Amino acid sequence: MQTREILSGVKSGEISIEEAERFFKKEPFLEFDFAKLDTHREIRQGFPEVVFCERKADAYLADIFQRLYERYGEVFGTRASKAQYELVKKVIPDIVYDEISGILKLEREKERIGNVVVCTAGTADIPVAEEAAQTAEYFGTKVTRIYDVGVSGLHRLLYKIEEIQKANCVIAAAGMEGALPSVIGGLVENPVIAVPTAVGYGVSAGGFTALLTMLSTCANGVSVVNIGNGYGAGYLATQINRLAERNRKVD
Amino acid sequence: MQTREILSGVKSGEISIEEAERFFKKEPFLEFDFAKLDTHREIRQGFPEVVFCERKADAYLADIFQRLYERYGEVFGTRASKAQYELVKKVIPDIVYDEISGILKLEREKERIGNVVVCTAGTADIPVAEEAAQTAEYFGTKVTRIYDVGVSGLHRLLYKIEEIQKANCVIAAAGMEGALPSVIGGLVENPVIAVPTAVGYGVSAGGFTALLTMLSTCANGVSVVNIGNGYGAGYLATQINRLAERNRKVD
Amino acid sequence: MQTREILSGVKSGEISIEEAERFFKKEPFLEFDFAKLDTHREIRQGFPEVVFCERKADAYLADIFQRLYERYGEVFGTRASKAQYELVKKVIPDIVYDEISGILKLEREKERIGNVVVCTAGTADIPVAEEAAQTAEYFGTKVTRIYDVGVSGLHRLLYKIEEIQKANCVIAAAGMEGALPSVIGGLVENPVIAVPTAVGYGVSAGGFTALLTMLSTCANGVSVVNIGNGYGAGYLATQINRLAERNRKVD
Amino acid sequence: MQTREILSGVKSGEISIEEAERFFKKEPFLEFDFAKLDTHREIRQGFPEVVFCERKADAYLADIFQRLYERYGEVFGTRASKAQYELVKKVIPDIVYDEISGILKLEREKERIGNVVVCTAGTADIPVAEEAAQTAEYFGTKVTRIYDVGVSGLHRLLYKIEEIQKANCVIAAAGMEGALPSVIGGLVENPVIAVPTAVGYGVSAGGFTALLTMLSTCANGVSVVNIGNGYGAGYLATQINRLAERNRKVD
Amino acid sequence: MQTREILSGVKSGEISIEEAERFFKKEPFLEFDFAKLDTHREIRQGFPEVVFCERKADAYLADIFQRLYERYGEVFGTRASKAQYELVKKVIPDIVYDEISGILKLEREKERIGNVVVCTAGTADIPVAEEAAQTAEYFGTKVTRIYDVGVSGLHRLLYKIEEIQKANCVIAAAGMEGALPSVIGGLVENPVIAVPTAVGYGVSAGGFTALLTMLSTCANGVSVVNIGNGYGAGYLATQINRLAERNRKVD
Amino acid sequence: MQTREILSGVKSGEISIEEAERFFKKEPFLEFDFAKLDTHREIRQGFPEVVFCERKADAYLADIFQRLYERYGEVFGTRASKAQYELVKKVIPDIVYDEISGILKLEREKERIGNVVVCTAGTADIPVAEEAAQTAEYFGTKVTRIYDVGVSGLHRLLYKIEEIQKANCVIAAAGMEGALPSVIGGLVENPVIAVPTAVGYGVSAGGFTALLTMLSTCANGVSVVNIGNGYGAGYLATQINRLAERNRKVD
Amino acid sequence: MQTREILSGVKSGEISIEEAERFFKKEPFLEFDFAKLDTHREIRQGFPEVVFCERKADAYLADIFQRLYERYGEVFGTRASKAQYELVKKVIPDIVYDEISGILKLEREKERIGNVVVCTAGTADIPVAEEAAQTAEYFGTKVTRIYDVGVSGLHRLLYKIEEIQKANCVIAAAGMEGALPSVIGGLVENPVIAVPTAVGYGVSAGGFTALLTMLSTCANGVSVVNIGNGYGAGYLATQINRLAERNRKVD
Amino acid sequence: MQTREILSGVKSGEISIEEAERFFKKEPFLEFDFAKLDTHREIRQGFPEVVFCERKADAYLADIFQRLYERYGEVFGTRASKAQYELVKKVIPDIVYDEISGILKLEREKERIGNVVVCTAGTADIPVAEEAAQTAEYFGTKVTRIYDVGVSGLHRLLYKIEEIQKANCVIAAAGMEGALPSVIGGLVENPVIAVPTAVGYGVSAGGFTALLTMLSTCANGVSVVNIGNGYGAGYLATQINRLAERNRKVD
Repeated sequence: MQTREILSGVKSGEISIEEAERFFKKEPFLEFDFAKLDTHREIRQGFPEVVFCERKADAYLADIFQRLYERYGEVFGTRASKAQYELVKKVIPDIVYDEISGILKLEREKERIGNVVVCTAGTADIPVAEEAAQTAEYFGTKVTRIYDVGVSGLHRLLYKIEEIQKANCVIAAAGMEGALPSVIGGLVENPVIAVPTAVGYGVSAGGFTALLTMLSTCANGVSVVNIGNGYGAGYLATQINRLAERNRKVD
Repeated sequence: MQTREILSGVKSGEISIEEAERFFKKEPFLEFDFAKLDTHREIRQGFPEVVFCERKADAYLADIFQRLYERYGEVFGTRASKAQYELVKKVIPDIVYDEISGILKLEREKERIGNVVVCTAGTADIPVAEEAAQTAEYFGTKVTRIYDVGVSGLHRLLYKIEEIQKANCVIAAAGMEGALPSVIGGLVENPVIAVPTAVGYGVSAGGFTALLTMLSTCANGVSVVNIGNGYGAGYLATQINRLAERNRKVD
Repeated sequence: MQTREILSGVKSGEISIEEAERFFKKEPFLEFDFAKLDTHREIRQGFPEVVFCERKADAYLADIFQRLYERYGEVFGTRASKAQYELVKKVIPDIVYDEISGILKLEREKERIGNVVVCTAGTADIPVAEEAAQTAEYFGTKVTRIYDVGVSGLHRLLYKIEEIQKANCVIAAAGMEGALPSVIGGLVENPVIAVPTAVGYGVSAGGFTALLTMLSTCANGVSVVNIGNGYGAGYLATQINRLAERNRKVD
Repeated sequence: MQTREILSGVKSGEISIEEAERFFKKEPFLEFDFAKLDTHREIRQGFPEVVFCERKADAYLADIFQRLYERYGEVFGTRASKAQYELVKKVIPDIVYDEISGILKLEREKERIGNVVVCTAGTADIPVAEEAAQTAEYFGTKVTRIYDVGVSGLHRLLYKIEEIQKANCVIAAAGMEGALPSVIGGLVENPVIAVPTAVGYGVSAGGFTALLTMLSTCANGVSVVNIGNGYGAGYLATQINRLAERNRKVD
Repeated sequence: MQTREILSGVKSGEISIEEAERFFKKEPFLEFDFAKLDTHREIRQGFPEVVFCERKADAYLADIFQRLYERYGEVFGTRASKAQYELVKKVIPDIVYDEISGILKLEREKERIGNVVVCTAGTADIPVAEEAAQTAEYFGTKVTRIYDVGVSGLHRLLYKIEEIQKANCVIAAAGMEGALPSVIGGLVENPVIAVPTAVGYGVSAGGFTALLTMLSTCANGVSVVNIGNGYGAGYLATQINRLAERNRKVD
Repeated sequence: MQTREILSGVKSGEISIEEAERFFKKEPFLEFDFAKLDTHREIRQGFPEVVFCERKADAYLADIFQRLYERYGEVFGTRASKAQYELVKKVIPDIVYDEISGILKLEREKERIGNVVVCTAGTADIPVAEEAAQTAEYFGTKVTRIYDVGVSGLHRLLYKIEEIQKANCVIAAAGMEGALPSVIGGLVENPVIAVPTAVGYGVSAGGFTALLTMLSTCANGVSVVNIGNGYGAGYLATQINRLAERNRKVD
Repeated sequence: MQTREILSGVKSGEISIEEAERFFKKEPFLEFDFAKLDTHREIRQGFPEVVFCERKADAYLADIFQRLYERYGEVFGTRASKAQYELVKKVIPDIVYDEISGILKLEREKERIGNVVVCTAGTADIPVAEEAAQTAEYFGTKVTRIYDVGVSGLHRLLYKIEEIQKANCVIAAAGMEGALPSVIGGLVENPVIAVPTAVGYGVSAGGFTALLTMLSTCANGVSVVNIGNGYGAGYLATQINRLAERNRKVD
Repeated sequence: MQTREILSGVKSGEISIEEAERFFKKEPFLEFDFAKLDTHREIRQGFPEVVFCERKADAYLADIFQRLYERYGEVFGTRASKAQYELVKKVIPDIVYDEISGILKLEREKERIGNVVVCTAGTADIPVAEEAAQTAEYFGTKVTRIYDVGVSGLHRLLYKIEEIQKANCVIAAAGMEGALPSVIGGLVENPVIAVPTAVGYGVSAGGFTALLTMLSTCANGVSVVNIGNGYGAGYLATQINRLAERNRKVD
């Protein structure tokens, strides 16, 4: 449809060739020396670009934060080191760093909607869970945290189950044997996003066992993201939550 | 809350001890000779139990189908063999078998809601995609199929992209290098459920490469289910679609 | 101690050199053409030798069964095929074959002691569970079977939990994500023997995921045997049960 | 049974609704800021909670030790670093740290019962063996240590075999090819708990080879815990030892 | 460039909106019931579409062969079974089937250019080598076959080395330890395409060892394709050979 | 042929026995204390020896650089550390070190020919890409860099596609899911050399997922080198580019 | 040395150019249609070529057997199927087939020297052990078989240990946990060749666990060949035995 | 035999019960606090115990060196760190440390016999090769070193081949693709011991690829030891060399 309309516009002269060319070539990104920041994403997906700080060269990290901050009035980075925080602080003095999750952000106040629950099996899974929770919050989602409810002491989970059942979407982060999403998946009616964490030793070191467990789940409605990918879980939870709330807002 | 109400009911005599015991012990399942059919799921999750036919003993397969059919007026099984179809046909003559997906079902007419798109990279991924699509349809979801749009001939995908972008949720099934969900994930705003398939040879035989690719995706909003788990993808898509449509229905 | 006593016996003439030589060389096995049946095990470990039928050459399978039967008045084989059953039947007409577990046995009546519970997550895990249960029974253990109580429908397990908690030892067989032993391990006070089964598809095919899950368990008191090793679980459960009951019998 | 009794108590007024609610909701855990200490375990399993120190945040490690110490009059942590020891020492000055095993404990004097033997193949396996031995001792088990008796110099093991055969349960820790539990398993009548260690280089680095060997054992009565899981082995040995001794104590 | 020209054409009226739309939407594929044949590839890459027969449904295999044959006057399929040959023969009676390589083709006479050498380590690698050789020939490449020159009898390779050194590109197929491409890579000046084959047993079964060896090569100019991917090697060799010969043809 | 000529020369006395012996024994290498520098390579393959600096002992690294520099008037090392740079600088003061790629070189001015494009999926892949680009340049190839065009923001790649399509050969470096070479392979007509990088976390850490994806590609004309092997990709691209240009130079 | 002598011979006319050329080109192999039989091996290594029958095409298998038989007066093939036996029997009616090991041979009478012991852990390892034993015998080695002496019943091994200690070389074949070579390696003074077999199930299926165990052995003097490579073990044992006996024969 | 003789001695009084007991119990080891030094090995295998220094606790390392030195007049340790050298030096001031191989030794002068060749593919493999060479020398073997003769520059190997062919046994250490032992194995008549090294990056990092290649070799007479196990290779080479020379010494 859109293609035809632009072509008609070109034919009629309403749209210049340059404008149309820009459309067909799909250019909207910020060209840095090396990087190409995907500013088009906001139009395409409804969310601004976020910075994955790990391995980003010092040479342009602060620059990226500053440009995004100027563009959006807020900025959000994941997997930042303390050294990176010091670096960015020089150009954005109000930037906030959370050592547990490695999140580096300056967030505008915003109304948050819906209801996403983030659970962990143990306390060591909290860094990943916080990455998920804060990502979802940054994208405008209301989040409830329920931590340390792993399956080896099932009564802790059962004590909280009604609260969990009310969520539009549950994020469950677990390392070791990674059984938490299976058990939650069997008890709730909405989607469960399973996030394996690298917590464990021996065969569970690195998170592969938890990953395999989660993929093998016999519970319904459970899908999985990469080991430690709290950001991905928070993003997906936001998408689901947004869909769940989209017509409600009309009320 | 509920716990307190039941206890109050017991105290006041409104609820008998047997009833309360039944609640606390949470019994509602059909006890077969060996199996325990989870009839409680419908209450807990809003969907009836479905039959995973693979490895089910002949001795009680037909019996399970019949009991579920009597209870729900419809019945749905996945990964059925032709021999299992013949078996079930004896007790439910109208049962329908789809050789490509291995689905064995007798479905009530029902209104389907929302919009889920199911894509495949190649034609060999269709069995898994059909398992996903028919599962979603069985649970009341409107499904659009867009098959054979893998990344080695990108123009085929781009030709269909606007249709894909309209979905509440996209299921993308792919074997080989499994890159399809990454590319779609970068182009849509709603969740993408990635389903690796066992299609491939050499290092991609069995679906592990596709699985790893999908978990590693740098695109946002993509989560993954087990290799070949079309059922799981269809179920999850239904959950998301149901959330997306839940307030719309009030209109 | 024993060494010194034998040597003293030799010195004094009470024990002949041949007898002593036999002791030090530790010979008591039945030498077949190729095999060496470990008849010494009964003395060393308290249980007669059992036949692992898989891959046993037809040429001497029946012979082994017959010799053991003659020696012990009963005989027990695991992983037997139907063809092997036909073979053995010719020499031991009363031999009994259980197609589900592949057990081929002729068992003397015996009193069974104690209490071992054998659980499965699903119905497809029953063959392995039966191998475990029947092994334990053959070695004189009282066994309770509680099948199809996997974690995706937790209420089924909770309904049976008190019965499970009474066991001297619990065997928990599960494929797929293999979470059952973790959950049971958190709820009982006696040992749990986890048996991964090959049940599953995609990443759980073959039983490796279940194995890894069980090894990674954060529950206490759980140990693991090889994938599908029902025999090993039944044997170990018998050892534990025997220890638990040994002083009771004095009463 | 218990359920019915509580409900009857509620009906008759003997048990208040709050008390019953507490039972059905199964709350007994200590809620920290993030963690939920499972104080219910002592009732459920007969052992107090133990602290897995690895990755525990400094912020609340000392606090956990102190609270558990106040509750039980003793406290036991595994995989503690020297830095963690310094931290805890500030609140519990008498705490004792064992650098080899990483155990951090303050133990009440107690009578120890039964007989568990802990073996190692080499001297490098001792840290794991000590974790096992000290765990078992903490839970009240009498432990005999027999170290450096690996299969490459079989005479060392044979020299000690009679002592090993007397144990209610044997823990065998080994890295490299991990053959020790197989050989012991063939020579004793009680259970053998195999603990793979990360000792080795090349294909045995990390302990996977030892793990696979132990799972593959052709000896009877051998079960396996995670690589380096001395704690799990010590706990399980205690359970078995306790069962073996339970009626003896009546004498 | 092209984009701007088309837009100018639209503006000037030289190009109709429909034509331009077709360009921007990039449609040129044959839509079957399920499949989308990429007929655009010939324009994009200079080669017609080829049929990967494995797993292609019988329902439309013959149809695909026929349509491609009609379009190009020749047709080429890889990994065809004998049964598929029988099927296609009904619609293209002159189709030729090579049982060793599984190639099913009807080839127009054509002049072949350049010089590609295809080597194998053993005779069991010939099926893969033939897939490579015949693919290259189908695409117009002159091919020399030098088979059974593996490194365990190095003199056989050295005897042929001058012939190998003359090629524009060498394809080296090997299973087992896969060392052939390393040795050739050290002796020639043009690219070597390494094709691991599934030939081998034990650790080399399935071709993974050969694959890893080839990727690890310390020789220069060696790149690798998937296990058994003779087609890919033949295609790539053709591309390189075509580049090597492109200006020569002007002579 | 050559063999016969030398033998004839020996017979006729034109060639001395020593000279012939030298030929048949194929000696031309520089013997160091430990190493044997392959100076014959230039004759055999047309390129001088390059230094792989990683793990090279300090004792003779500078010596190797100096000898090669004396022989060729230029010298090129890969994977050099900063410490190695300091070492070599003492003997070759003008040596140039590039911290990003780890390349340590002193390059003669030279005319570069042809056209190789080097792409990356993200900015973290640039070190590997630079190793490839600078290697190709050192061997006389004209290189165009197009970085940060990964598939999650496809429009960035499409914007540059025409430039990519003009190359004699494309090098595509990617970590994470490694899908970039598949997408490029479907859009260009010349060879694509896929270089997996270790960029990623969870299942993509280390580069194995990217490697498997690239090997599994359903696109044509893609071959793969070892993870992080920028040097190998640059060398191979040079070979292909040289073949593509060899007849053009005659013009 | 040899090189110089031949060149001198050429110069002096004692050796013709053709002869010398043949030497330097190293041609002595039998060129079949596809295969190149390495008849040079006998000169190079002292043993005639042996036929690896698995995957050999029917088209030339019998031909190879016949040619080798004609050349050497005996012939030896491994991994032959019964069907291959039937095929070869047509051209060599006296050929002998051993179903257990898959060996197909016609052997000249010969004196056998030295002493090699072949052990197995179980009866299922006998096929591999027989391949080893018969290979060694074919190459002129005296072999003693000691089967079914695995470590789970150690007394069986100890009973035979003196016989084993007398061998020039011990071959130990084992599947499952593969601990036999470690135990033997600790008890003998001559080399032990460990052969993993595919015997086992669960984690030991396929022989990888046994392989890893054997490679990880802490015993001295143990080296390993590929899973199931009885031929390789028999060949190597022959080499060692031949060295051990070489000067003795002078007596 | 020996058993009977000792028993007869006991009976006749020639041998005391204590002496006999000592024989049957097989005690000869040095009991340290934790370790049990296998001094019996010298009798059993003809070589004194050697110290594997890695992971040995500082507390008793020097003590072990000293005791062995006192017993044998020489002492040999592998995988020692520089810190361990400093430690041992305090008790044995003349101890010699080789930083490249990590060997820590004080060696008596001794005559060395026979001929073992140690080869490496590259210079980075030298540490492992030196461990092998010096081990063999310590045990009395004459060793020739031929380093940096990998297959990518085959002429270097061919130049040295006659020297290699003269060895009683060849040790070939290689990382990367590990093809060197295959090529050597095809050219010599005596055993080749393949030692994979951890040299490499990407898929060859850690030495697994080299290991798999060596196990898969199609050459005869090649066996493999663990990655980096130079000691094992040197020990085995010594055994073979000793057998090869044993009758020669009589001359």
